[in-house]
Amino acid sequence: GSPATKKPCKPAELSYGDRAQLQNTHPLAAQLLRLMEEKKTNLCVSADMTCCEELLQLADTLGPQMCVLKTHVDILQDFSPAFTQSLRDLGLKHNFLIFEDRKFADIGNTVKHQYEGGLYQISSWSHIVNAHAVPGPGVVKGLSAVGRPLDRGCVLIAQMSSQGSLATGDYTEAVVKMAEEHSEFVFGFISGSKISNKPEFVHMTPGVQMQSGGDGLGQQYSSPDDVICKKGSDIIIVGRGILGASDRVKTAAEYREAGWNAYTKRLNTSSQ
Amino acid sequence: GSPATKKPCKPAELSYGDRAQLQNTHPLAAQLLRLMEEKKTNLCVSADMTCCEELLQLADTLGPQMCVLKTHVDILQDFSPAFTQSLRDLGLKHNFLIFEDRKFADIGNTVKHQYEGGLYQISSWSHIVNAHAVPGPGVVKGLSAVGRPLDRGCVLIAQMSSQGSLATGDYTEAVVKMAEEHSEFVFGFISGSKISNKPEFVHMTPGVQMQSGGDGLGQQYSSPDDVICKKGSDIIIVGRGILGASDRVKTAAEYREAGWNAYTKRLNTSSQ
Repeated sequence: GSPATKKPCKPAELSYGDRAQLQNTHPLAAQLLRLMEEKKTNLCVSADMTCCEELLQLADTLGPQMCVLKTHVDILQDFSPAFTQSLRDLGLKHNFLIFEDRKFADIGNTVKHQYEGGLYQISSWSHIVNAHAVPGPGVVKGLSAVGRPLDRGCVLIAQMSSQGSLATGDYTEAVVKMAEEHSEFVFGFISGSKISNKPEFVHMTPGVQMQSGGDGLGQQYSSPDDVICKKGSDIIIVGRGILGASDRVKTAAEYREAGWNAYTKRLNTSSQ
Repeated sequence: GSPATKKPCKPAELSYGDRAQLQNTHPLAAQLLRLMEEKKTNLCVSADMTCCEELLQLADTLGPQMCVLKTHVDILQDFSPAFTQSLRDLGLKHNFLIFEDRKFADIGNTVKHQYEGGLYQISSWSHIVNAHAVPGPGVVKGLSAVGRPLDRGCVLIAQMSSQGSLATGDYTEAVVKMAEEHSEFVFGFISGSKISNKPEFVHMTPGVQMQSGGDGLGQQYSSPDDVICKKGSDIIIVGRGILGASDRVKTAAEYREAGWNAYTKRLNTSSQ
């Protein structure tokens, strides 16, 4: 195209696969970016169920559609160590990573115990965890002390999809800085849009539905195209949009396709 | 004293007991302030153990010294519903409230499940919980939907004792505003100092030790006198200062006395 039509385009973007091969990409992020390229999916399914059997069934049927399965183990009424083993087995079978959405938010000494110990022993089975930056860098140091020896990784919550969130402006900037300073363990963000230009970082966006709207408790939704193509994020996190559908497999496939199409559109736009 | 010596004094302060009787004091805060006055203690013990039996023993031996027992149930390796019943029994025996330091920090729909469900069923046994304000008011609405029917209450984390915390300035101000707007469920703050002039709100301060210092993971300590008398907080939260002592009962009694003396000193100073 002419220079005039080029103006809105961003600098040429790297594919997920290219980013996996960068020297400074965290090993877990590299694994994630590779499997996204291989499976052609940037869909993370948020499995907010309260029963282990139902969650495992979901992981098995939707496994082929997703790159990451996001859990809240602390809402399961019948959690057991056997459940985490089954979940790991399904992750290997379908090639997805497990992301316990614990939102660690305490001082370093406490999150160490919360990550490693208790009934959930999150570090033993969850590849990815997330943390709020509000306690300061100690939260990352505490988690890293447990997670690095196990080759785990962490994403920091830089923005939230909920109404009136305080994770904006200076707060978000401080989170980006904290991630950059701890990139041996932090490999990305929970955010509404791309907030770091470093291609090593992975951006994951919650609150995604085909239709925009809300839930009455402050949640706000954006569409896959908006999140991936316009806002430059890498992974769409979809919960109720899929869990609430009458045909979950069909709906997950639709989200996967919408997310992937938005990604290829973004790549094509940037290389025009 | 002469007007010149009066200058540094603040307006006359209400006692814990007086504040319990104010019309707008949350019922749970009123109960807490009353028992503080009765037991003459503003000491909250942070029971960061990993074994239920050890925690229960601590609660029984230190029960007479404290107004609140703070727990992290998610670091207990052998948590069971029977444990929470024993803990409640000890709370009744020694007249202290239970505060699960969960630091809820997700959107409203998720924290509802985390508070009520899962293996821990926190809302069924913990009088007090806390939350980060970073998700916006939805976090309080979600918790309130579960906690209010059970006469529970919540404190918002407005400041943290850890180095480099992002809970400062505008963030802290936004937390105070959120608390004021949701005072039907929120009755106070986790903060380093008094941040609201409304006497209905209770301020609780973590990171308290007789000697100031840190822990290598970002935790920073202040003394009881500093926290209660100079900074105007109401409750000292002490963990490692007591748990690490060779004689925990004796040490807890010392913290209780230091905290109470600081409180009476503050009252006397303000009424001069």
